[in-house]
Amino acid sequence: MACYREEFSITTRSHDELVDVTERVRRVVERSGARDGLCSIYTPHATAAIAINENADPNVCTDVLEALRKMVPDHAGWLHDRVDDNAAAHIKATVLGPSQSVPIAGGKLMLGSWQNIFLCEFDGPRDGRRVVVSTLF
Amino acid sequence: MACYREEFSITTRSHDELVDVTERVRRVVERSGARDGLCSIYTPHATAAIAINENADPNVCTDVLEALRKMVPDHAGWLHDRVDDNAAAHIKATVLGPSQSVPIAGGKLMLGSWQNIFLCEFDGPRDGRRVVVSTLF
Amino acid sequence: MACYREEFSITTRSHDELVDVTERVRRVVERSGARDGLCSIYTPHATAAIAINENADPNVCTDVLEALRKMVPDHAGWLHDRVDDNAAAHIKATVLGPSQSVPIAGGKLMLGSWQNIFLCEFDGPRDGRRVVVSTLF
Repeated sequence: MACYREEFSITTRSHDELVDVTERVRRVVERSGARDGLCSIYTPHATAAIAINENADPNVCTDVLEALRKMVPDHAGWLHDRVDDNAAAHIKATVLGPSQSVPIAGGKLMLGSWQNIFLCEFDGPRDGRRVVVSTLF
Repeated sequence: MACYREEFSITTRSHDELVDVTERVRRVVERSGARDGLCSIYTPHATAAIAINENADPNVCTDVLEALRKMVPDHAGWLHDRVDDNAAAHIKATVLGPSQSVPIAGGKLMLGSWQNIFLCEFDGPRDGRRVVVSTLF
Repeated sequence: MACYREEFSITTRSHDELVDVTERVRRVVERSGARDGLCSIYTPHATAAIAINENADPNVCTDVLEALRKMVPDHAGWLHDRVDDNAAAHIKATVLGPSQSVPIAGGKLMLGSWQNIFLCEFDGPRDGRRVVVSTLF
């Protein structure tokens, strides 16, 4: 098997934010030379996540963030808030998870027409949010 | 590495629905000839997801759908509803995610006795919901 | 491709619990001899899940469990409770999912400094909760 891997960094600008990284992931897949295989997108942070959904209407991102705020309210008595004051960010990151996998066919990610890949920031703004892209083929 | 991939389509019959695709995935794994590796199940849609849970009692599926409706109420002021009126479907799809991965051992999926694989429809009924099954071995 | 796989079992001690399995997964990765590839961590149970988050402050785990209890209250009229009385456990397991994937680089898991891997028990205490670790490289 070949495993080609690259990493890039994102600067986030808000406390909660979905940053579209689809094009950067696509370019890694191209450089990897993978024709058929699997692409794993991973973020090595405990208050960030990787998610896949629509960006044609960016309101979808706004709605996702608002829904997560309702599911996991800030400062709702979380114990970790006494230490770092970012418990809700950890909980949201756990629910969404740090990675996604997308098949590669004919050298392209098999994303649907309405699917984009996002780095989800839950404790920003921050420099240096890392995204690790691995292709297995 | 070998990467064997097949795709199939599902017609959904309700607005929210979990469709058991375990047998169809199993048959792809058999045809792939994989003995030991990983099976990725992916749906390229922004209002659908792939999940794994029990189907011995189909009420588990009903409960999962009801719980998601409580977590993400329909038409709760979501901005994307002004465009497509299906924001809740996008949010649920983001929370569950478009893919799952299951190990393959001795030519079989390592699903537990109570685990089945589901296409989750959140914006149906629809024709042509695609499921992409990839085996890496 | 090489696929190296090992399985281990966990005894859980509470009804809801996050058990840190990072060291056990790390040792499998070492024994696999993988230098660069992907590690899949899978649990073949319908009332358990695999998640990744912080354990430096164990309160993060307590907060995650409490947040899931609020999102999916016990005995809130779930139909499956009439059969097995553990519907909330199934729903939580569906939301978090049975697997996570982490890249391997230079023979090491690419976990961030604040990331640990957890078996999530939602219907314990139980003996013999299985965790399947596969490395593809």
